[in-house]
Amino acid sequence: REVMNREVISAHVLDDQEAVSQTMARYDFLALPVVDDENRILGIVTVDDIVDVIQSEAVEDLQLMGAVSPTEEPYHTLSLLMRVRKRLGWLILLFFAQILSASVIQHFSSMIDQVVALTWFVTLLISTGGNAGSQSSAIIVSGLAAGQIRPRQWWRIVLRESIVGIVIGTLLGLLLFSRAVMVDAGIFVALTAGISMFLIVVFATMIGTLIPLILRRLGLDPALTSSPFIATISDITGLLIYFNIARLFWAKISGM
Amino acid sequence: REVMNREVISAHVLDDQEAVSQTMARYDFLALPVVDDENRILGIVTVDDIVDVIQSEAVEDLQLMGAVSPTEEPYHTLSLLMRVRKRLGWLILLFFAQILSASVIQHFSSMIDQVVALTWFVTLLISTGGNAGSQSSAIIVSGLAAGQIRPRQWWRIVLRESIVGIVIGTLLGLLLFSRAVMVDAGIFVALTAGISMFLIVVFATMIGTLIPLILRRLGLDPALTSSPFIATISDITGLLIYFNIARLFWAKISGM
Repeated sequence: REVMNREVISAHVLDDQEAVSQTMARYDFLALPVVDDENRILGIVTVDDIVDVIQSEAVEDLQLMGAVSPTEEPYHTLSLLMRVRKRLGWLILLFFAQILSASVIQHFSSMIDQVVALTWFVTLLISTGGNAGSQSSAIIVSGLAAGQIRPRQWWRIVLRESIVGIVIGTLLGLLLFSRAVMVDAGIFVALTAGISMFLIVVFATMIGTLIPLILRRLGLDPALTSSPFIATISDITGLLIYFNIARLFWAKISGM
Repeated sequence: REVMNREVISAHVLDDQEAVSQTMARYDFLALPVVDDENRILGIVTVDDIVDVIQSEAVEDLQLMGAVSPTEEPYHTLSLLMRVRKRLGWLILLFFAQILSASVIQHFSSMIDQVVALTWFVTLLISTGGNAGSQSSAIIVSGLAAGQIRPRQWWRIVLRESIVGIVIGTLLGLLLFSRAVMVDAGIFVALTAGISMFLIVVFATMIGTLIPLILRRLGLDPALTSSPFIATISDITGLLIYFNIARLFWAKISGM
């Protein structure tokens, strides 16, 4: 009784394997007892099993982040049909979402007809939004995977990430405005592009932060927030922001 | 001497920690001797250290794939300045690369002026290319991280991925062609969009496969093939493919 340590760190039988591996990584244990609700020992998990778990979870996260349905099967034994199936579903889903972006551009065709220079910065704007959003989601997904971020603190995380988004958005907005002035896009297009850049980066940062947190709350894998998924959402909202700001300015200019 | 096993699996002192953890994961070892060039034992690595290594490598890969410079420091203690610095460098680099995409569109302004419907599918095309490329790189990066893919077999991997690209590209090309006909984009734009979709998906798949393999060959971390990086390359080449095919068809039509 004298050598007994009452504070036993253990894993519950219903714990997720990712949580168990985080506990073992934190305490450098070689084995962990697994208990039930009444603290009865049901067995142990040893660290060599955990190595496999962590490695396969990491591979799964990387694949999900790239919008690939993960499989347990190793790369070389997958058939062509399986290779295509793992990817095609996501691509078609994202394709149909992107049809919305085509509709947005189509809707503003008459304005593009009048100011072709508006099209110059479309891909730059939406891609930068996608990049900023992918960064946020990579930070949140990896923070959750490492057990550094707890979903309960979501409002603090969102606040921090949005400040980062505002700082980055301001800098990139000024950069795009200067570039647009330099290539003689006209002050109207330059202002529209600069302001849109700011708003798009801030919005994409929020989306990239919130979606993995919401997925975790819902009990889903936050790595489902793939970069392609974030990019598609920020493409559509980016176009809406850009063309609506252009229309607003356009109305003011035409009204003069 | 009778109980001796001559085939000792060991790690070399100069081995990368990722390689060591792959060996331990494969054999379910609790410890591994570390030897020098003459097979003299210098020490051992235990599995609990490896758990930390695998976890931090996984976090690093996830961050790199999202174009975030990884840090050892946990999420909550990072200052605002560090948060911005980890991301801004990548975003500005990608911004300057995207200026090329703006120049491509600017260069084709007179054709866009004549056929505004060409702009409708620009974001859909380049984003689908980026998605297909991100998928390939996610598969290759995770395959390399799990030790399932060896860079020596690169030609076989490239061959397999390009077949997948051709199958997926054909299906998505037909889908976009049908969609363009449906929304009355005109047969000229529909054909241009469909053929471009095929070529863009095949090209992006190749890029997404080759870059992580090349990075590994160069001794760099293949996870540097971030989705934003792939997306930017496939944006620029995608626009070049699309508008050049449009110009080709346009020349034929105008010539009639």
